Amino acid sequence: MLTRRKLGTSALLAALGFAARAETQTGESANVHEHGHDMSNMPASWHGDEQIVFLGYQGMTALDLIGPQYMLANLMGATVKVAAKSLDPIMTDTGITLVPDVTFEDAVKDPDVLCIPGGTLGTLDAMRDGATMEFVRQSGANAGYVTSVCTGTLLLGQAGLIDGYRVTSHWITRPMMEQFGAIPVNERVVVDRNRITGAGVTAGIDFGLMLLARMRDDDYAKGVQLLAEYDPQPPFDAGTPEKAPAHLTELLEGMFAVLGASVSESAAYR
Amino acid sequence: MLTRRKLGTSALLAALGFAARAETQTGESANVHEHGHDMSNMPASWHGDEQIVFLGYQGMTALDLIGPQYMLANLMGATVKVAAKSLDPIMTDTGITLVPDVTFEDAVKDPDVLCIPGGTLGTLDAMRDGATMEFVRQSGANAGYVTSVCTGTLLLGQAGLIDGYRVTSHWITRPMMEQFGAIPVNERVVVDRNRITGAGVTAGIDFGLMLLARMRDDDYAKGVQLLAEYDPQPPFDAGTPEKAPAHLTELLEGMFAVLGASVSESAAYR
Repeated sequence: MLTRRKLGTSALLAALGFAARAETQTGESANVHEHGHDMSNMPASWHGDEQIVFLGYQGMTALDLIGPQYMLANLMGATVKVAAKSLDPIMTDTGITLVPDVTFEDAVKDPDVLCIPGGTLGTLDAMRDGATMEFVRQSGANAGYVTSVCTGTLLLGQAGLIDGYRVTSHWITRPMMEQFGAIPVNERVVVDRNRITGAGVTAGIDFGLMLLARMRDDDYAKGVQLLAEYDPQPPFDAGTPEKAPAHLTELLEGMFAVLGASVSESAAYR
Repeated sequence: MLTRRKLGTSALLAALGFAARAETQTGESANVHEHGHDMSNMPASWHGDEQIVFLGYQGMTALDLIGPQYMLANLMGATVKVAAKSLDPIMTDTGITLVPDVTFEDAVKDPDVLCIPGGTLGTLDAMRDGATMEFVRQSGANAGYVTSVCTGTLLLGQAGLIDGYRVTSHWITRPMMEQFGAIPVNERVVVDRNRITGAGVTAGIDFGLMLLARMRDDDYAKGVQLLAEYDPQPPFDAGTPEKAPAHLTELLEGMFAVLGASVSESAAYR
């Protein structure tokens, strides 16, 4: 089977990361030439060595992770891993199966970035899982940036990592942040000291780009935005409870009517 | 390990799909009540039974698939599968490992939707792989909608499925569409008869929402947009070659200078 590195060097969407590996791995210098990747205009300051860890867990939402992971995987020189309780395949809530890269034991304990994706009952289960919460607590205590997307904030809250912080979350769970001592903010991405939280699902893409600019510079983030052709043109303007037709907001609120109670129950496991 | 169905019934992001299964699977009616999902306002017309197939291949770009897959997985009653040459884990170009659901042999041969994600050298390899191209040709010939995201159009082109069609593709590969007899269009999502193509990477999210509206109705798509909290706020406006700083566009063009030649070489394998 092809190795990650072999594919990494040939990916349009990991092109910047490829450039980095090409600069740092003599064995691949030939490939650079072969594939015609011209690094001559690449500032040395664009290369780093960050350790980035995403939490993986059963029932998580794939897009919560894959959106920002795409952006961070294009950080030249960075190492990006999905850490989970075991190396068992992770069944996500839309049916996509992901395989974690490392167990909690083998993951770096002081990552430059810790990112927690969301989910629903899978996230509630994770809130009650001792090993998972211990990993989030330890890694979060030592991480450079402590971040989440969507309902991932529930796990940051359960780990005591957002007490006293301004945070956002999926619009359904945003009001629930108060029980973790956090200050819910109705914004798509919220930065408070080294905590960076994204709103529901797709906010992870905007969050990822913002993080790239902080970890490199604006030009770097713009380059990855261009690589991702991120020029969003939603066919509708219904992406928030304020903008969506009231009957649709009420429908979704009804579908998750008891989620708040379930969150409080799980929070009691702290 | 938790099963897909068990998680599917509990996923915030598969909530609408959950509603569908709850309506149709008596065994889960209890869960509906238990989890407080109120279906009373759900139009019967929102439920379908579509078969949706995504192509999976080594070196593909995870976000090209996960973006639209999130949207289509929320089609109530639909079955969404990732079909690949084998069930071996797929190493994507950003280092995420995905596990396919079915082999080409076991996949439905006349899906309501066939969607081809992009990549770079992985996509070029797929263009030269007989089994993969035969699957794209057969499935594409019988599919209701023949679709692609990003450089996935290279595989549609190689399979002869876009000859005479207006298409888009990642901005880097868009001009290359002409050698497949297609008419490249500089738009984010292009619909020509039953061919629907998305531009680079993140365009798959806009494409997915547009497809939801066609397969159900506008309200349905808006509901999923709200579930995904898709209210994009990119920190920069550099998502197209026209909008990005010229030196960044030139940098990426330089990085992929020889891609065009590689595509022509692979196209010669037809």
